[in-house]
Amino acid sequence: MSYVVVRDFHRTEATVIDGLAALGVSTVHEADQRRGALDPRIRPIQSGARIAGSAVTVSCHPGDNLMVHAAVETCRTGDILVVATTSPSTDGMIGELLATSLRAHGVVGIVTAAGIRDVAELRAMDFPVWARAVSPQGTVKASPGSVNVPLVCGGQLVHPGDAIVADDDGVVVVPHGRSAEVLDAARARAANEDAKRAKLAAGELGVDMYGLRALLKELGVTYVDGSA
Amino acid sequence: MSYVVVRDFHRTEATVIDGLAALGVSTVHEADQRRGALDPRIRPIQSGARIAGSAVTVSCHPGDNLMVHAAVETCRTGDILVVATTSPSTDGMIGELLATSLRAHGVVGIVTAAGIRDVAELRAMDFPVWARAVSPQGTVKASPGSVNVPLVCGGQLVHPGDAIVADDDGVVVVPHGRSAEVLDAARARAANEDAKRAKLAAGELGVDMYGLRALLKELGVTYVDGSA
Amino acid sequence: MSYVVVRDFHRTEATVIDGLAALGVSTVHEADQRRGALDPRIRPIQSGARIAGSAVTVSCHPGDNLMVHAAVETCRTGDILVVATTSPSTDGMIGELLATSLRAHGVVGIVTAAGIRDVAELRAMDFPVWARAVSPQGTVKASPGSVNVPLVCGGQLVHPGDAIVADDDGVVVVPHGRSAEVLDAARARAANEDAKRAKLAAGELGVDMYGLRALLKELGVTYVDGSA
Amino acid sequence: MSYVVVRDFHRTEATVIDGLAALGVSTVHEADQRRGALDPRIRPIQSGARIAGSAVTVSCHPGDNLMVHAAVETCRTGDILVVATTSPSTDGMIGELLATSLRAHGVVGIVTAAGIRDVAELRAMDFPVWARAVSPQGTVKASPGSVNVPLVCGGQLVHPGDAIVADDDGVVVVPHGRSAEVLDAARARAANEDAKRAKLAAGELGVDMYGLRALLKELGVTYVDGSA
Amino acid sequence: MSYVVVRDFHRTEATVIDGLAALGVSTVHEADQRRGALDPRIRPIQSGARIAGSAVTVSCHPGDNLMVHAAVETCRTGDILVVATTSPSTDGMIGELLATSLRAHGVVGIVTAAGIRDVAELRAMDFPVWARAVSPQGTVKASPGSVNVPLVCGGQLVHPGDAIVADDDGVVVVPHGRSAEVLDAARARAANEDAKRAKLAAGELGVDMYGLRALLKELGVTYVDGSA
Amino acid sequence: MSYVVVRDFHRTEATVIDGLAALGVSTVHEADQRRGALDPRIRPIQSGARIAGSAVTVSCHPGDNLMVHAAVETCRTGDILVVATTSPSTDGMIGELLATSLRAHGVVGIVTAAGIRDVAELRAMDFPVWARAVSPQGTVKASPGSVNVPLVCGGQLVHPGDAIVADDDGVVVVPHGRSAEVLDAARARAANEDAKRAKLAAGELGVDMYGLRALLKELGVTYVDGSA
Repeated sequence: MSYVVVRDFHRTEATVIDGLAALGVSTVHEADQRRGALDPRIRPIQSGARIAGSAVTVSCHPGDNLMVHAAVETCRTGDILVVATTSPSTDGMIGELLATSLRAHGVVGIVTAAGIRDVAELRAMDFPVWARAVSPQGTVKASPGSVNVPLVCGGQLVHPGDAIVADDDGVVVVPHGRSAEVLDAARARAANEDAKRAKLAAGELGVDMYGLRALLKELGVTYVDGSA
Repeated sequence: MSYVVVRDFHRTEATVIDGLAALGVSTVHEADQRRGALDPRIRPIQSGARIAGSAVTVSCHPGDNLMVHAAVETCRTGDILVVATTSPSTDGMIGELLATSLRAHGVVGIVTAAGIRDVAELRAMDFPVWARAVSPQGTVKASPGSVNVPLVCGGQLVHPGDAIVADDDGVVVVPHGRSAEVLDAARARAANEDAKRAKLAAGELGVDMYGLRALLKELGVTYVDGSA
Repeated sequence: MSYVVVRDFHRTEATVIDGLAALGVSTVHEADQRRGALDPRIRPIQSGARIAGSAVTVSCHPGDNLMVHAAVETCRTGDILVVATTSPSTDGMIGELLATSLRAHGVVGIVTAAGIRDVAELRAMDFPVWARAVSPQGTVKASPGSVNVPLVCGGQLVHPGDAIVADDDGVVVVPHGRSAEVLDAARARAANEDAKRAKLAAGELGVDMYGLRALLKELGVTYVDGSA
Repeated sequence: MSYVVVRDFHRTEATVIDGLAALGVSTVHEADQRRGALDPRIRPIQSGARIAGSAVTVSCHPGDNLMVHAAVETCRTGDILVVATTSPSTDGMIGELLATSLRAHGVVGIVTAAGIRDVAELRAMDFPVWARAVSPQGTVKASPGSVNVPLVCGGQLVHPGDAIVADDDGVVVVPHGRSAEVLDAARARAANEDAKRAKLAAGELGVDMYGLRALLKELGVTYVDGSA
Repeated sequence: MSYVVVRDFHRTEATVIDGLAALGVSTVHEADQRRGALDPRIRPIQSGARIAGSAVTVSCHPGDNLMVHAAVETCRTGDILVVATTSPSTDGMIGELLATSLRAHGVVGIVTAAGIRDVAELRAMDFPVWARAVSPQGTVKASPGSVNVPLVCGGQLVHPGDAIVADDDGVVVVPHGRSAEVLDAARARAANEDAKRAKLAAGELGVDMYGLRALLKELGVTYVDGSA
Repeated sequence: MSYVVVRDFHRTEATVIDGLAALGVSTVHEADQRRGALDPRIRPIQSGARIAGSAVTVSCHPGDNLMVHAAVETCRTGDILVVATTSPSTDGMIGELLATSLRAHGVVGIVTAAGIRDVAELRAMDFPVWARAVSPQGTVKASPGSVNVPLVCGGQLVHPGDAIVADDDGVVVVPHGRSAEVLDAARARAANEDAKRAKLAAGELGVDMYGLRALLKELGVTYVDGSA
């Protein structure tokens, strides 16, 4: 009874997903009050991809990808597969064949705290992956786990249906329940950044623009003329 | 007497080498019953290279590349240089000049559990390298070691003449004595994958194709309807 | 009084900087008697950049980029920002907006023992960065630090105004006071390498060219005929 | 509004806590279906301590222990302080003075994914601590965080009031809601182990006692006579 | 056919084992020309133990201790169990029950590149263990492996029957075939150290005793009067 | 000319050294404005030692302890040997014989960013050591380095003669030039802690004693009644 495959769950709305994908990981993370960034050792295997989707979560035994197979039929168009192992592992849990199957069921990308393989093929397929390791080490299909239960991946709690955003900066998770408000906050932040960027590009200083001089003084930072 | 340079040894047959290179690391590793994958922290410095060759093995003192120089004259066309240090080191053991020398003696690539440098030049030369680190830190030529003796590199035992396969997934070693049978098994596996890929792309599930539903049931994995 | 921003300092001469940039990290490191290489875990976020500049040094509290903002007005054309934290941190200290500001004040690149973010945007801006991590994790502006004081970054002591050279091999620091002589030595070394490269490409062995056979013998390395 | 100190919450019953402490980390972890083990890099600073308690959770900015101070008044007799930082940090978040304060408010031990200091004094006080690092590096009190919110510590989700068990094997968290049933299962397991231990000590083989010979055969493991 | 349990093999002679145990890891390692030291991250869980024995080798799937159970009946009095996983794992492969079983079959200690648990109980039993990690994380019994085949543990090749020496300095393996000569060399080294120790304790300098002044001069090391 | 042994240098006054030793690492570190803490991965091999001394600095090639031998004659009563390698290394640079020699020349302890061996013997000698690793791996005597030059050890700049304090919390370096004022500040801090400790032990809260409630409010931390 403790190992389950949950067949369906509430996903994040498609319009919210699209909005988050357009803004990218760092902006969304800031807008959610600097929460949800996965362990930075989970890195993209490609360059330039920026995606968002609802999480399908998979908890596997280390060195065993049985539950990834079990997860496929629960996937819907636009999902991102989030795979964690019950203890640290770098083994290659997913390769080209599984990715082909996942894509056929609508999955748009993979995030894993374990390893990936067939990276040349995955890049050629244009199927984006963020992984803790690239490793040819194969896995068995012998031990149970669960699909679409809450789990910790890369140090962050992920519920099935949470919004996942992934790009060259890494991966962030936004809980389903606050995804719409985070999108609003992220859009406001992005809009605000355009004005800031123009000022900074023109040479205005951040210490002036953000009003940091008083803080620096209060913190005891003093200015000293150097040797020139 | 304990430090030796072995001048020659049995290499893996060229046709086997070519066959393994065509199939790639992960397929070969699976075909050899998931054996021989080197530590996944040994990564390619380039993207898209896929090579195979017979191992010329070099055991160096950390921070010392003297024995790499001693190894050059034992290399033959199609060899891959496999370099380990007697304790962990990230120093740049090999750069562009040594690579030029190795290429002149037929070497087609380098695998090292230590560091590499001149990576821009090596990429420009199209000389593929898999290394534990990129580091400018230079080495001395002061301490003895051995060439073409069995050694452990990236957690795997490598004998001189063993087949090395390396690509974007990492590196695998196949013992010389079973390389031909591994090639046969790898070809069978690759042929088999074409049919599987087509089925999976058409939406067939791995749990059905591999007959995993009975196993999941036996392991106590239950299916639950979720919130939707 | 212990937190200071030093407004100006002696920089490395522009002609020396240009000379070092042309030669690259590994050559400069060797020419400075194998000194100054930063921790190889500080890696470029781009491929193919090769720069040099005078160091503007920034010491930050972990998870806090306040002092990076304070550093901007001390930057001059051609400087490289060198950012360390007082204890290890992977947080994304600098992103696209700060990079825009730094560029507006003449900075040509960033080296940090902590994290970076907005890497897609930084690559698009062609603004080169060498960092210990890529991380979306945002920082606060709450704790004091210092600008343009000597600090340790990646295991090396860096004074403001020291020459920093960075490329695909990593980062090296050359103390301001010996930068001119290091440049001379590096040029001599590079000139010398052309002749060596030609010989090695023609098949001459390093053990002969460098006269290593006597050393190998003295060290007790013996030659053994193998199995072929 | 996003940073909160939750003043009170449901704790795990004292009789359950006492029962879990008597059984120890590994037995409890097994009884909870191998769930809840924190990252094994979180190690005890002492030898021989075995405690359990309800979690008071603290989420801090890296290098900042302000929220540990804020947590003290929420502690009750028998609690265990669980401290995480929003990104990895080894700084010494807690020393002897804070431990004195925590003890005065009933806390029986500390678990932290960051660092600890004053370990000689803490050992002399007989105040047990499990930490990711021992470090003298001091912290500031400058940035907000939260107390008694769910957080991830050492890769495991911890809610305030969950049962924490810690001993020489490490740390395990048992969710408040299933702590009583886990205790029952752990007691059953421990009782069962006495009989097993006697058999094994008498030379009975685990492969016979657990009936593993059929499994080994089914998995294709064969027995070979060796060289003697 | 690829997974085997080898029932018997040539062990290292008991008198050699006893001799090696008396001398300790570092002396034996030096006497074997600085070979055989396992990864220093494999650490003792106790203080002051110094043992030697013949290796019984076990290759396990990560997170799976089935083959440790299969290994027990192959153990003889004086053996040391050497356990590796096919990819890195910190899970607790062995605890008190298995140790009780191993002891009943004559095993005098455990060396593992993976994790151990029940360390308080193991210390109380006076059963020495060297492990890469202490972890409560439990394992399954689901995947095949091999017993008494050559394997790599902690970066060193270990054959069944090789001599293992373990103490507070770590672990060293001495191949069965050269164990007697290594013992002789180690005894000679130890005898030699008594005289050296007396001289050094009397204030004689190593640079004089080992004749290093000429080497220092040849290497270009110069002496400089300092500030006093 | 670039490798030197500096014969003498200004040491920290003995009364200052004694004062710092009495206060311990964490107090001294705080008193020096949280500076000078070495990498926390440098750990004591013993428990309960607390020492201070003037630094004799040794810069070695990795895997080579030649310069440690060269350093011995520069040591005076009360010195602490500080050993770094020019790139990361865990090899056992120093064992019992060298420690005997160092003690004969007045050295009271060793701090090294590399490895140590013979730890059982060193503990029996009561000779305290702080090291990055314990490793039996032996070293050569083949490459030059320097003695009593400024170097970086564990991420901190150490000049010969600087005060080193080491205890169970780790290691801190205090520059010679400010050691007396740091001692004064550390004594004031320690005196101040007695009063604080008494208050905290009596139940007074740090948030009141340190006046943190206003800061928490200003930072937006709110208090919430929980579920009880």
